[in-house]
Amino acid sequence: MTRKIGILASGHVGSTIAHQLIIEGTTDSLVMIDPNVKKLAADVLDFQDAQANLDHHTTVFAGHYADLADADIVVSGFGNIAEAWKTPTDRFAEFSYSKQYVEASAPQLKASGFHGVLIVISNPCDVITSLFQKMTALPRNQVIGTGTLLDSARMKRATAAALDIDPRSVDGYSLGEHGNSQFVAWSTVRVLGEPIKKLLASGQYPDLDLDQIDHDAKMGGHTVFFGKQYTNYGISAAAVRLIKAILNDAHAELPVSNYYEPLDTYLGYPAIIGKQGIVKQLKLELTAQEQVQLKKSADFIKSKTAEALKNAE
Amino acid sequence: MTRKIGILASGHVGSTIAHQLIIEGTTDSLVMIDPNVKKLAADVLDFQDAQANLDHHTTVFAGHYADLADADIVVSGFGNIAEAWKTPTDRFAEFSYSKQYVEASAPQLKASGFHGVLIVISNPCDVITSLFQKMTALPRNQVIGTGTLLDSARMKRATAAALDIDPRSVDGYSLGEHGNSQFVAWSTVRVLGEPIKKLLASGQYPDLDLDQIDHDAKMGGHTVFFGKQYTNYGISAAAVRLIKAILNDAHAELPVSNYYEPLDTYLGYPAIIGKQGIVKQLKLELTAQEQVQLKKSADFIKSKTAEALKNAE
Amino acid sequence: MTRKIGILASGHVGSTIAHQLIIEGTTDSLVMIDPNVKKLAADVLDFQDAQANLDHHTTVFAGHYADLADADIVVSGFGNIAEAWKTPTDRFAEFSYSKQYVEASAPQLKASGFHGVLIVISNPCDVITSLFQKMTALPRNQVIGTGTLLDSARMKRATAAALDIDPRSVDGYSLGEHGNSQFVAWSTVRVLGEPIKKLLASGQYPDLDLDQIDHDAKMGGHTVFFGKQYTNYGISAAAVRLIKAILNDAHAELPVSNYYEPLDTYLGYPAIIGKQGIVKQLKLELTAQEQVQLKKSADFIKSKTAEALKNAE
Amino acid sequence: MTRKIGILASGHVGSTIAHQLIIEGTTDSLVMIDPNVKKLAADVLDFQDAQANLDHHTTVFAGHYADLADADIVVSGFGNIAEAWKTPTDRFAEFSYSKQYVEASAPQLKASGFHGVLIVISNPCDVITSLFQKMTALPRNQVIGTGTLLDSARMKRATAAALDIDPRSVDGYSLGEHGNSQFVAWSTVRVLGEPIKKLLASGQYPDLDLDQIDHDAKMGGHTVFFGKQYTNYGISAAAVRLIKAILNDAHAELPVSNYYEPLDTYLGYPAIIGKQGIVKQLKLELTAQEQVQLKKSADFIKSKTAEALKNAE
Repeated sequence: MTRKIGILASGHVGSTIAHQLIIEGTTDSLVMIDPNVKKLAADVLDFQDAQANLDHHTTVFAGHYADLADADIVVSGFGNIAEAWKTPTDRFAEFSYSKQYVEASAPQLKASGFHGVLIVISNPCDVITSLFQKMTALPRNQVIGTGTLLDSARMKRATAAALDIDPRSVDGYSLGEHGNSQFVAWSTVRVLGEPIKKLLASGQYPDLDLDQIDHDAKMGGHTVFFGKQYTNYGISAAAVRLIKAILNDAHAELPVSNYYEPLDTYLGYPAIIGKQGIVKQLKLELTAQEQVQLKKSADFIKSKTAEALKNAE
Repeated sequence: MTRKIGILASGHVGSTIAHQLIIEGTTDSLVMIDPNVKKLAADVLDFQDAQANLDHHTTVFAGHYADLADADIVVSGFGNIAEAWKTPTDRFAEFSYSKQYVEASAPQLKASGFHGVLIVISNPCDVITSLFQKMTALPRNQVIGTGTLLDSARMKRATAAALDIDPRSVDGYSLGEHGNSQFVAWSTVRVLGEPIKKLLASGQYPDLDLDQIDHDAKMGGHTVFFGKQYTNYGISAAAVRLIKAILNDAHAELPVSNYYEPLDTYLGYPAIIGKQGIVKQLKLELTAQEQVQLKKSADFIKSKTAEALKNAE
Repeated sequence: MTRKIGILASGHVGSTIAHQLIIEGTTDSLVMIDPNVKKLAADVLDFQDAQANLDHHTTVFAGHYADLADADIVVSGFGNIAEAWKTPTDRFAEFSYSKQYVEASAPQLKASGFHGVLIVISNPCDVITSLFQKMTALPRNQVIGTGTLLDSARMKRATAAALDIDPRSVDGYSLGEHGNSQFVAWSTVRVLGEPIKKLLASGQYPDLDLDQIDHDAKMGGHTVFFGKQYTNYGISAAAVRLIKAILNDAHAELPVSNYYEPLDTYLGYPAIIGKQGIVKQLKLELTAQEQVQLKKSADFIKSKTAEALKNAE
Repeated sequence: MTRKIGILASGHVGSTIAHQLIIEGTTDSLVMIDPNVKKLAADVLDFQDAQANLDHHTTVFAGHYADLADADIVVSGFGNIAEAWKTPTDRFAEFSYSKQYVEASAPQLKASGFHGVLIVISNPCDVITSLFQKMTALPRNQVIGTGTLLDSARMKRATAAALDIDPRSVDGYSLGEHGNSQFVAWSTVRVLGEPIKKLLASGQYPDLDLDQIDHDAKMGGHTVFFGKQYTNYGISAAAVRLIKAILNDAHAELPVSNYYEPLDTYLGYPAIIGKQGIVKQLKLELTAQEQVQLKKSADFIKSKTAEALKNAE
């Protein structure tokens, strides 16, 4: 068993990521941990019932933190739909719940001896990633949030739809908070061989509306959430892409929540990803407006993180 | 778009199958149809949000029956958890709901001009498969239920666990109804190079308990269902394996619900699967006891089907 | 059998592409055609010997042009190593051989009724693609050469190595002839979130040498060719990526050999790829120097194509 | 880099296995070692040229034995076509060459500190596997030859063709030497739900000719070899299947060359495969005739091995 991944929480997100990993044969061993032992047992058995009809073999089991000592990657996928549902357009709805979870989880993860890369999906993503890093005392490069990797995918989806092209043929990033203060850094977005702003200016695509795409990208999660009370497929694809970049030591460029020194906070910003997590951060030349937006988003994350840490004392 | 698949119902099962198909790049075009337009729109958007981070491109959209005219395969995945939950150990709990669904769905599917293979997952699987075949007037070979393909996988999982081997290294079938009258045809089960009955008799595996495995295989679905109020991963793997055998024209052997002439009913029985669905049915040499069990299971399915058809008049 | 691909010639390139398609399960049916019946029979049997140990089922067979009537894609992979070896740094070494092959092959392909997308790998790629288009009378959008898709990959490999990043994290194109007149259009190349020229100017990467990369990308094929007398893995990955974009109707952006109206010739230039081949061509804003280079490369291809057509009369 | 595989020799077999591993993303790091540095460099560069167009990232490099210290698996794929070609129907044609290779290679592999699983493909497979085990002093369970895994696949291919079914729907084994003394153990072969001998006796398949299949399976390699002077695709599929069973710790059942105590030799015989190589060997109930055939094959392998070891002194 040369690849080992742990997943904290078998909710909609955690179990869907587990499913994708199992189907693709991405890991040899998969440890699932959840206090809801009944749901967890159901998922694990369901995954095992799939094995006879799958191409890859994965050893999936309900485990404990101690099983994570030698894991390559641990994914924190916990969340609380009931809380989230109270104010569904605010990822901070789950804040109080998530904070308690981190406070309970991080010490156990630390005690396990885990020394791989921790991927945080739980919302509010940037704050929780920061909390996890502090409480596990893992090096900053080894604690990564999926952050705006999903938002960037949503921006690509909306942009691609407007231009009738493959989302994978859209380059660029959504930056900042995986939340309402995020923004598409349009200066980084390129399609059809040129900056999208130039394409827009050319008048060739009269229906191309960047504000609409920005709004659509930001609201995409809410649309999904309102429609089914959770989101799982988009985030699973983002998380698994990140997982593969780490396992393969790919040195692939991905916008994820990582510590951004100039603004002293975790936030969504592109970085090179390898087996030790963040290998190197990019240095974007953002426009003045984008810099303001990034600062504003950072300030928001920082204030929330400070609040969380204060309460945590 | 050379491969096209339609999925009826985006519930836990339908959406999980869609997810597996999208992740594996099994189809070029995926049409999803569900009367719950809000849930459907949420799933479709969520799938589209995944595309930028996936290896394969799939055109997924919320469609109509008319879109199925040229589909290679249509999967009926509808179900009703609320109904199922009333008597959770009885797959007939959903009978009334499912029957109404078929009555509404089959004429539209027929009217669409669909002439591919219809895969039925909806419970009670064997009865619903039979109803669909009659109401769509598709040739019998083109209407297949996943039937005991999942139960066989559960038997393999339980047998493999008892022997500490890969479930894929267990051969054999669960036969009959995808429901309580099903049974493991132990005469067909082989492991470690010999019939499991012989292995049992050898005394090498004192903990090997076939009755326990049979019970475990049959109850596996209930355990999952009680733990999370639905089952999705095991059935998805079964359905996708069947889908691939059809798309590839693989002539692969799989135990599925297909029309069994000797007992004049649909039931779980191994067949060779190709692009036209059932290519040929196997002729098993069952023991006298197994033949009795198969007959009993067939009688149950037949009586329920007759009841359904009578009510449908 | 919903996906069908034909491969003309089972040499190093054709058989390696067939292998990749079979391993990945990209096609349901694979027709291989080669006048060297002994080599062809050996490859087909070897592929069939692989099937029992693979995850996907592919029907592979030695066929005839008539089998291509309903193929989605046909790949022309013929070549002549003996000829190529005479002047190994010149892809025109195979010209005379290839021209004869097209003259023999195109009429048969046309007569078969094939109406899918024809992918041409044979060298000199741009000229042969053009010849095939004219002789099969297929619409221009349906005849595509792999062209500088491979050269772009080589540029990405060399650039990625210099920066210690994933080649997939390098954007940009090599343009023009898949041959000695090709060039890296550095104005299109972006890495680490910025144009590579800007990165170079920043002085952060003192070892970054674009001329060296350009030379390395262009000479990559020769290095491989000198080392083993053929190239197959890089070209196979390029061809299969193109094949998938077509089968999936992905509308993906790829630099391939397609008809470029402003210079009235086939040459390597980015386009959007879908099920009908070329969906739309990009409009790059090249530098004045790059425009000169493109024109020069186009002129070369045109003169060679004219020569070929003249001789063909 | 959590999965690491080494391949000794980048000939037709070694490079094809490398290609399959890279395409499927089976390993994170791939070390290739070959004294023919020019061919090796060409293959490695060619693989790197493929990376930008592939779904998975693999770090491929030309390495040294020292790089194998922490490899999970090493594959010995060396061979000598020139020698093999002298007497192409005899896998012992390469004996002298292979023996020298093992004598040169094994001490270096041992010195590297490699402690994973060694997979031997080089012919004569069973003898070379035995030599490697003795000379590396690795535990017997950690040294495995692909042996009759390929021959079993050939038997399945021929049987499946006769019955028009998927080769993966044929169960059973070819046993003994991966060479002329091998045989299909027909008592282990099951198709369409019954022993093939019973199916044959039923008269339903008048064209089913087991002697022909046996001959065809045994001669399959020769047909391929005569057609193209090497075999690579079938053996690659076999080797990669074995590799995955090891990496996944799948406990999958596969017929491979492993040490068979009753006859005190390595030979093709089914075993359960996991991360430590051979987990457990099956105990087949062969017919008296098959036992004689196995003994004869074992005697042949033993005499050749003894001869090899004697000369090696």
